[in-house]
Amino acid sequence: MNEFDIIEKYFVPLTRGNAGTAGLKDDGAVVDIPDGHELVVTSDTLNADTHFLSNEAPENIARKALRVNLSDLASMGARPLCYQLNLAFPEKPSEDWLAAFSNALQEDNEQYGIYCSGGDTTGIKGGYLSVSITAMGLVPKGKAVRRHGAKAGDLLVMTGEIGDAALGLKAIRAGREHDFPYAVSRYRVPQPRLSAIGAVQKYANAAADVSDGLLADVKNIAKSSSLGVEIDPSKVNISKDVQKALVENFITWQEILSSGDDYELIMAVSDCANCFDELFYNINLNQYVVGRFLENNLTFSVLDTVTHRIDIKGVGWSHF
Amino acid sequence: MNEFDIIEKYFVPLTRGNAGTAGLKDDGAVVDIPDGHELVVTSDTLNADTHFLSNEAPENIARKALRVNLSDLASMGARPLCYQLNLAFPEKPSEDWLAAFSNALQEDNEQYGIYCSGGDTTGIKGGYLSVSITAMGLVPKGKAVRRHGAKAGDLLVMTGEIGDAALGLKAIRAGREHDFPYAVSRYRVPQPRLSAIGAVQKYANAAADVSDGLLADVKNIAKSSSLGVEIDPSKVNISKDVQKALVENFITWQEILSSGDDYELIMAVSDCANCFDELFYNINLNQYVVGRFLENNLTFSVLDTVTHRIDIKGVGWSHF
Repeated sequence: MNEFDIIEKYFVPLTRGNAGTAGLKDDGAVVDIPDGHELVVTSDTLNADTHFLSNEAPENIARKALRVNLSDLASMGARPLCYQLNLAFPEKPSEDWLAAFSNALQEDNEQYGIYCSGGDTTGIKGGYLSVSITAMGLVPKGKAVRRHGAKAGDLLVMTGEIGDAALGLKAIRAGREHDFPYAVSRYRVPQPRLSAIGAVQKYANAAADVSDGLLADVKNIAKSSSLGVEIDPSKVNISKDVQKALVENFITWQEILSSGDDYELIMAVSDCANCFDELFYNINLNQYVVGRFLENNLTFSVLDTVTHRIDIKGVGWSHF
Repeated sequence: MNEFDIIEKYFVPLTRGNAGTAGLKDDGAVVDIPDGHELVVTSDTLNADTHFLSNEAPENIARKALRVNLSDLASMGARPLCYQLNLAFPEKPSEDWLAAFSNALQEDNEQYGIYCSGGDTTGIKGGYLSVSITAMGLVPKGKAVRRHGAKAGDLLVMTGEIGDAALGLKAIRAGREHDFPYAVSRYRVPQPRLSAIGAVQKYANAAADVSDGLLADVKNIAKSSSLGVEIDPSKVNISKDVQKALVENFITWQEILSSGDDYELIMAVSDCANCFDELFYNINLNQYVVGRFLENNLTFSVLDTVTHRIDIKGVGWSHF
């Protein structure tokens, strides 16, 4: 199989017959944007041995690469529409690898109602696979939720649990996958909170997903909104796996609060009793108030309720 | 400088203050699509030592990565709007490298009236830089030009000259850059034919850019349109550098017709004397009729006017 055979067999089906993609035969795809809508676009590049383990199963690489982008769309209140898939293969992938990779994408296509609009399949020297996805979503004009919209007094609301991805990676590296199976599955296959998109659109003054770490991402919202913020780690929900790891000192609160890859959503929500109950009523997602935005410009405090030693200087992840 | 400092200093200016990008602080960008328009989206991944020379100047890498995408938009009749820039760096780039790379992008932003809407800056192991760009353009609804629209009897029209990119690369590899400076500059810095967008929208029944090689790209249009095609190589325009290289047998017609990277446009245009004169009247671009589409489904003939030995089996480029 050459490059074009691979595209025909494994990637054309991912267009799900969308006419605008012309079976990936054209120089580009035509994407229909309904009048009255804006496009939201986001990109993530994931590289072997940096963003996923070199020996990671192809279906997990596919899901992770796609879902981290869908999570970004969700945090802006945009409904996912389609995505461009750019691949740089260090060697010709096997048909088994391609089948597993593309089948996982197709399952996600069906689950999330999206399609692949195009991309590029290339070879790269050096031995490390690189997967770049640019995802596109739709939002009614003017309704995209930005980071800079938080208001003083807003509650900081977080969906789900954090710390699992950090624990999962640590467990894999320590050969302890079987001790923390839930955390490992959360690290391997993120669950983008697409069910929250309606709530984000309706109630969030600002939002982000927890991709760089809770402290870093909250700090970014506060900074973008020219506000301070106070976080109470005792209100942050953690899974039973993370609780167990904390008890045996296999993970620290610093790691839980500073590691990314959990892909939960954080939102600045007006402090009104009624709307808040409604926020997640229908979406089968737990949510927790874990802090509050403050007028004091750029104060960033982590309440010392959990540990006496949280170094809030080194938050988040930087590639360099 | 860490990853975020690099983004702030070198990449945020590329947004040119577009409000939808929020200074690259958000999870994604909001792109305004005027009512009555469709989005055209295309992606290209360029990897060091595969798509560009490992020691290539950063400004040339930047221009090539962006312009090959703009060329795809032009071939579909779409006006470029913005692009996502995904980078995988094998090591932390120097500030000189980043300045040259981002300055070249900014010059192209200004020249073409576009902006960077976002992307991702990552590290990759293995030693080879990877640059993925996803470009987005606008076209009035229903006006995108596809490959499958050619009609029997249509003229095959090509802009400019081909063969320079193949010759340029060959000259660089042979240490003969100074013998073929025009070809080398065409290889290093493609000139996307954006001035032809109006003509493509108005007159082309089908179009593509010559990125995989003239024969391969013409064949794709014919195949997509379920037509045959006849190409007359004696009508294909070549530069003085390519003429000189042909004379000294440094390049062959096979190479000229089969090598890509020239980024000229090919179009299927109705055979009407008046419209054809008008086609390129105002756009300062030479164009040539180099063939004709035929009813005979899938015949693909290259007239034997130039050489008696053109092997039309091995056309174009495949990564595997």
